[in-house]
Amino acid sequence: MLDPTTLQEVAKQSADTAQGLGQLTVSANLVWTCLCAFMVMFMQAGFALVETGLTRSKNVAHTMAMNFLVYAIGIIGFWAIGFGLQMGGVGAMATYGGDASLSQEFTVNVGGKQWGLFGTTGFFLPLAQYTPAVATMFLFQMVFMDTTATIPTGALAERWKFGAFIAFSFVISTVIYPVYANWVWGGGWLSQLGHNYGLGHGHVDFAGSSVVHMTGGVTALITCKLLGPRLGKYNADGTPNPIPGHNIPMAVLGTFILCFGWFGFNSGSTLAASDNRFAIVAVNTMLASAAGALAATFYGNLKFGKPDPTWMCNGMLAGLVAITAPCAFVSAGTSLFIGAVSGFLVIAAALFVETTLKIDDPVGAIAVHGCNGLWGILAVGLFSNGTYGEGLNGVTGPVKGLFYGDSGQLFASLIGIGANIVYVGLLASASFVVIGRMMGGHRVSPEVELAGLDVPEMGVDGYVGDPGIILPDEAATQPPALYPVHTAGSQ
Amino acid sequence: MLDPTTLQEVAKQSADTAQGLGQLTVSANLVWTCLCAFMVMFMQAGFALVETGLTRSKNVAHTMAMNFLVYAIGIIGFWAIGFGLQMGGVGAMATYGGDASLSQEFTVNVGGKQWGLFGTTGFFLPLAQYTPAVATMFLFQMVFMDTTATIPTGALAERWKFGAFIAFSFVISTVIYPVYANWVWGGGWLSQLGHNYGLGHGHVDFAGSSVVHMTGGVTALITCKLLGPRLGKYNADGTPNPIPGHNIPMAVLGTFILCFGWFGFNSGSTLAASDNRFAIVAVNTMLASAAGALAATFYGNLKFGKPDPTWMCNGMLAGLVAITAPCAFVSAGTSLFIGAVSGFLVIAAALFVETTLKIDDPVGAIAVHGCNGLWGILAVGLFSNGTYGEGLNGVTGPVKGLFYGDSGQLFASLIGIGANIVYVGLLASASFVVIGRMMGGHRVSPEVELAGLDVPEMGVDGYVGDPGIILPDEAATQPPALYPVHTAGSQ
Amino acid sequence: MLDPTTLQEVAKQSADTAQGLGQLTVSANLVWTCLCAFMVMFMQAGFALVETGLTRSKNVAHTMAMNFLVYAIGIIGFWAIGFGLQMGGVGAMATYGGDASLSQEFTVNVGGKQWGLFGTTGFFLPLAQYTPAVATMFLFQMVFMDTTATIPTGALAERWKFGAFIAFSFVISTVIYPVYANWVWGGGWLSQLGHNYGLGHGHVDFAGSSVVHMTGGVTALITCKLLGPRLGKYNADGTPNPIPGHNIPMAVLGTFILCFGWFGFNSGSTLAASDNRFAIVAVNTMLASAAGALAATFYGNLKFGKPDPTWMCNGMLAGLVAITAPCAFVSAGTSLFIGAVSGFLVIAAALFVETTLKIDDPVGAIAVHGCNGLWGILAVGLFSNGTYGEGLNGVTGPVKGLFYGDSGQLFASLIGIGANIVYVGLLASASFVVIGRMMGGHRVSPEVELAGLDVPEMGVDGYVGDPGIILPDEAATQPPALYPVHTAGSQ
Repeated sequence: MLDPTTLQEVAKQSADTAQGLGQLTVSANLVWTCLCAFMVMFMQAGFALVETGLTRSKNVAHTMAMNFLVYAIGIIGFWAIGFGLQMGGVGAMATYGGDASLSQEFTVNVGGKQWGLFGTTGFFLPLAQYTPAVATMFLFQMVFMDTTATIPTGALAERWKFGAFIAFSFVISTVIYPVYANWVWGGGWLSQLGHNYGLGHGHVDFAGSSVVHMTGGVTALITCKLLGPRLGKYNADGTPNPIPGHNIPMAVLGTFILCFGWFGFNSGSTLAASDNRFAIVAVNTMLASAAGALAATFYGNLKFGKPDPTWMCNGMLAGLVAITAPCAFVSAGTSLFIGAVSGFLVIAAALFVETTLKIDDPVGAIAVHGCNGLWGILAVGLFSNGTYGEGLNGVTGPVKGLFYGDSGQLFASLIGIGANIVYVGLLASASFVVIGRMMGGHRVSPEVELAGLDVPEMGVDGYVGDPGIILPDEAATQPPALYPVHTAGSQ
Repeated sequence: MLDPTTLQEVAKQSADTAQGLGQLTVSANLVWTCLCAFMVMFMQAGFALVETGLTRSKNVAHTMAMNFLVYAIGIIGFWAIGFGLQMGGVGAMATYGGDASLSQEFTVNVGGKQWGLFGTTGFFLPLAQYTPAVATMFLFQMVFMDTTATIPTGALAERWKFGAFIAFSFVISTVIYPVYANWVWGGGWLSQLGHNYGLGHGHVDFAGSSVVHMTGGVTALITCKLLGPRLGKYNADGTPNPIPGHNIPMAVLGTFILCFGWFGFNSGSTLAASDNRFAIVAVNTMLASAAGALAATFYGNLKFGKPDPTWMCNGMLAGLVAITAPCAFVSAGTSLFIGAVSGFLVIAAALFVETTLKIDDPVGAIAVHGCNGLWGILAVGLFSNGTYGEGLNGVTGPVKGLFYGDSGQLFASLIGIGANIVYVGLLASASFVVIGRMMGGHRVSPEVELAGLDVPEMGVDGYVGDPGIILPDEAATQPPALYPVHTAGSQ
Repeated sequence: MLDPTTLQEVAKQSADTAQGLGQLTVSANLVWTCLCAFMVMFMQAGFALVETGLTRSKNVAHTMAMNFLVYAIGIIGFWAIGFGLQMGGVGAMATYGGDASLSQEFTVNVGGKQWGLFGTTGFFLPLAQYTPAVATMFLFQMVFMDTTATIPTGALAERWKFGAFIAFSFVISTVIYPVYANWVWGGGWLSQLGHNYGLGHGHVDFAGSSVVHMTGGVTALITCKLLGPRLGKYNADGTPNPIPGHNIPMAVLGTFILCFGWFGFNSGSTLAASDNRFAIVAVNTMLASAAGALAATFYGNLKFGKPDPTWMCNGMLAGLVAITAPCAFVSAGTSLFIGAVSGFLVIAAALFVETTLKIDDPVGAIAVHGCNGLWGILAVGLFSNGTYGEGLNGVTGPVKGLFYGDSGQLFASLIGIGANIVYVGLLASASFVVIGRMMGGHRVSPEVELAGLDVPEMGVDGYVGDPGIILPDEAATQPPALYPVHTAGSQ
């Protein structure tokens, strides 16, 4: 192309280029958000492996299947209803330059202020609204919701009826999660606490310590208490017995997959490639995960005498959960501190749940997601250092926590925590009870539980032994004298 | 930099910026396509785990090794010959602004129309053509080809000689796949059916339901029939025995990895970050996968009385295979419908293959890839809704299926299906037979098959047992009374 | 927006667009580098699986835990000290348009030339320097360092005390790796050999054959020799016994994950989406990996009579290690050649280490990373073909190896190799010995080693058996006559 020479030609080229730059920026933002969503989707595999590794081999098909099917159930529920409830009120249609006029939030008047409660458009992704921007938003929000839905499967593992699990997961994806998510991310009342009442920037949760993890953790706590402990978990005097997981490598692999996906989870929550903050988010996430893992390792070693890999994994996950809300608002050193605290918290909370509350949570989901989700949200209100968040939720200035001069931000966090516990706790327990009534109970029979759920519930053995793997004559000749290999126990 | 003030300065800056924007757009497109190619490459791990999990533990080293080495074999074959045959005629050199004059397609004159048959340049990636654009195209097409090459390893598992597998995989990567791929994606005759004969936009396959999956499925069907069933699969009266897979968690993990990679597979097929359609493709892919998994779960439950995780996995994969061709051209609701049908189809087809055709396909590859690949291509011809595909294959207007007014598009799909079955069927069976003759048969001896292929064929045990993992005194003291742990069977 | 019409308006728009293009380019570069860093982080899971699969089941919790915790330890060490030492002198602050004045390198005067030895800023990621650009650089360099730190855990597996492992890994992350990395990538003296002494472009290592892999391999060699072989590895006459790995699928999965992550490792080393060379890097990486796998398969088959999957995996890894340094500078054909050589080298080196040096490296880390890292760096000096590297390390013109006319480039490679062996060898052995003294030895007791390290060192069984997985009555009725399933050996 010849270089333009007249003013008219130059003006045309300049205008075209400006428009092209705008389009490429949108494309870059969609690419970034979609790629991060793919990584978050892959976290489903991580949850499946962590939960299955930390439970017993007689239930592996059942535990894996719950973690697998919850993804499919969640997609359907979120497509039909959840997405509209969560994002129909604001974000989905308007983000990335979409048509905001299509958005509609159901609100009630509370003392002269409009409180947004849930969205009312976008159900079933209708063709007229099915733009690349809305699709990207659906994709990203969907995989976040599914993280929440998969958390209870760990706490209720090894004894939950598969049919009841399906029904309850559908309720999480259609109602329990989306409504609270609307309050925080969809323009609802918690996000307006700053604008309406001057409480900081309202309830701020960058990537979901409360929206995703507390919601999952509170649900797990309530339903796990309702379901009761596994047979043999508690002695007659109320003391707990350890029931070790069957496969440590599986749990560690799952944790690594979660760590990998978490970079998409937190960094991707900028929803834009053009907001370079994602890089700081990624490093804060990494630092907190390391501090959590090391703190749990050392505290576990102190308490139990060994550096148990189970605590390492749960410590890293605890650090990740805790940094999820504040990751965009704090310094590197603060991220390490938040993670380190979470490493201690996760052990203390797990023991409290097991020993004091008498709740049998096989994988520690309540301690990891519930307790550290709460800690992460608190951290936003305490440590946000005023380097980010300008204009968030319609409030001028960056986000500042208590230690940087804004006690209102902490108060907003506390209201968000309270709202989560009350709303999620009530809705989860009510729907769990109703489903139990409708479906003849949530719990498999004691015979099935003792035998393992794989064959009775799923129709297959999770592991099928096959003695062909060590040929007898070889086993007799190969191993050196110091290394007797017993042919009876093939792995 | 000072802002420009004279017209000349402004013209210079504007022209530079326009050029820079063009360059950054190319970079963004290459980044997107490469990242998606990486994800597709990772699908190899998914196939390896699904196939190994669904077969027996005495063959794990053999099954994993086939899925591993097919990647290396395919790279060499595709580099030397396959890529040139597939893309030498058009795409490789011209895409992303490359030099189209380097492209050359071999054509024959059929009734006055030029029919492209295969490309004739680009063999061995010569230095003169080794640009970033060509490298990106090679990378993306290579991992697609390898998906095809790995499909038969599942159907022929547990009895295929390793040497014969190597030779046959090389033929897939050099000839069988590339020629058909040229017809559809490299400018060949199937892609010109619209332009030449007015049949819609010609045979349209967005991401490979026919090119990748039917090619793999038809190859699996033919070769699996030729190889014969595993020993013990069929009784004297012709009824089949179930031979359950040995490791459900492995199969589920593999399915998750495939789901993750499939987002790169389908979305990446825009070959450009600047075509925002990738986001809609991703959501359609997700919706179909969920519907497939749920449909197969419910249909399997209806038919066999349990929600077998094997069907869940194959149902999700079936949904993914089916949506691969139409993912860019249909609505959200239609994607769900396509996926749901595939969930039923995969079970019906698997039973038909096993019971009626008496073909022993250990992992269901024929039902998943062959049958649902065909269904996906049909779906393009039926449901494409006219929202995308403007100008595709040189035809004006968007792609529309039968239900949106263009019966020619369905006819083009049918021709593409027929061409695949005839061409792939003939070439696969001929080369399979020739390789069998040259290499002393495809099948291991009955002794090896019964003992397991790991030590005889690969020289290693896939699993080596080690009784050190439960210390006797611990095993005697640890477990609670209700949970006897047998020390004989260590997992 | 109305199109601009006056010269002033056009000038304003043009200037704004030019600035916006610059910002979007930076964002694209950060996105690319961060996403590749995420992929490299995931390689930790690959290392964990390869090392654990290739060792024995009685040590799985210990081997997994080392590979897990090294990530957390490395993050802390690199955050506190390592990153500043490595990149404080130049890159971290200046790349992506950062403030170069914040950088500071400690130099010594050697014969009139300034030799950079290590950086002196950026410790603890202080808030003033904590920009998205610096965060991105930290993220990318951190995961590279961690790859090095995890290499010795394979060579020292099955007998290393967990506490000593923690201490030594901290030294790698804070000192051993960062200082050598500074010499090559942080503006240190090896990178200035061209500018200062006319030796090509100085020591050039595109993605780390020397910086990452030789550093890990030399450390593994030295420390593995110091630690001594596993009990039972060598007979009284000095001949070695094979100690086969316990889980081939695990090792293959790990290799696939490493292959996947390696695309981020090598391609991401452009550090910029706007440098399209990443696509050629990716294809060269793929080609070398395939050639390495196939060469090792065939050579292993020739030597041992079977196509052992262990050699396949190590062959592919060897090809990846070797192409890591030259991947940006060579043709497709040369990449295949480099990979093929590495496939032979890895077997020859492993046998040399085991038989001649009497060093017991359970996973072949020394052969894979040390030997092939050296080969990769040599390849830069031999085969760089003058198509890339203009201006690298402040030297005009592209990088050319011996066969393309620049013997100085080979000489620089040789100096880099020598410096690595001497510096890493000395520092690794000294710190290993000191840590051993301080912590009461590196090695577990013979009793612990024989029993397996899982319970004594980590407090958990890596695998817990559970006989519930095959119900007795089912086992008696299900399998066909030809397939007796022994219930004793449940997998």
